Amino acid sequence: MNSSAQSDLLQTLQTTLYDDIPLTNAMGLTVLSYDGTSLVLQAPLAPNINHKNTAFAGSLNAVLTLTGWGLLWLLLKELDLAGKIVIQDSTVNYLLPVTQDFSSTCLKPAPDQLARFEKTLRQHHRARLELEVNLIEQERLAVSLKGRYVAYLL
Amino acid sequence: MNSSAQSDLLQTLQTTLYDDIPLTNAMGLTVLSYDGTSLVLQAPLAPNINHKNTAFAGSLNAVLTLTGWGLLWLLLKELDLAGKIVIQDSTVNYLLPVTQDFSSTCLKPAPDQLARFEKTLRQHHRARLELEVNLIEQERLAVSLKGRYVAYLL
Repeated sequence: MNSSAQSDLLQTLQTTLYDDIPLTNAMGLTVLSYDGTSLVLQAPLAPNINHKNTAFAGSLNAVLTLTGWGLLWLLLKELDLAGKIVIQDSTVNYLLPVTQDFSSTCLKPAPDQLARFEKTLRQHHRARLELEVNLIEQERLAVSLKGRYVAYLL
Repeated sequence: MNSSAQSDLLQTLQTTLYDDIPLTNAMGLTVLSYDGTSLVLQAPLAPNINHKNTAFAGSLNAVLTLTGWGLLWLLLKELDLAGKIVIQDSTVNYLLPVTQDFSSTCLKPAPDQLARFEKTLRQHHRARLELEVNLIEQERLAVSLKGRYVAYLL
């Protein structure tokens, strides 16, 4: 995929998030970048703040959850498959308070894991993928999510 | 605590959530009830909807996280202790789609667990409490959170 097509895709992902999940507007969530390997979403601190002047755990969780969701959305586009994506379960570790505007990153899984995912999805029209999403602040891991997502072909 | 004092406390919790975490306004979160044993928070579907016309996982997670947080806030008030509360980690299972306005419930832990929590908190000015929060829709468990919260005395 060339960089212009990738930029269009990111714009579509941004619009999809805003249109489909109104709360992402209130959170100021934006799709920052995707280089074919990792997706980065970001959000400002102000609308997501809590009583300790750090980011509210619920907002952090939402941004990390959507970063994994967004990576899977991009994977389906790359596979040229139309599907829906849900999160089945997740575990989040809130390791450090987040004190400024933040971004979270989801890496594409290893090729063998991706190949298994694609094979299962094409055969059974349903496949599960485990994704890890991390939020780094000042070179330290502040929040980490491990989530199991399920894609269903439409 | 009599019911008038309890009602005042719930109003204070509601105000605290709205004032300290602006996103709870956008979510339409309200503190519904506390009977001395279980705290119930509720939110309308509309501002928390997703592309499948069900509740967005991030909103569900936020409401459940705050229900546990709110129960611990009430516990500190009952112990007449001033403290701050953070969530350390949580695991959430999204078992069924949530298709209407929803409420989530956090039960006060067993007396021996509470007694240990209080003793540790008074001795070390810091104590951890594991809480479970459930969202029931049409008599079925739809979302379940297990979270570890930490209270620090101020």
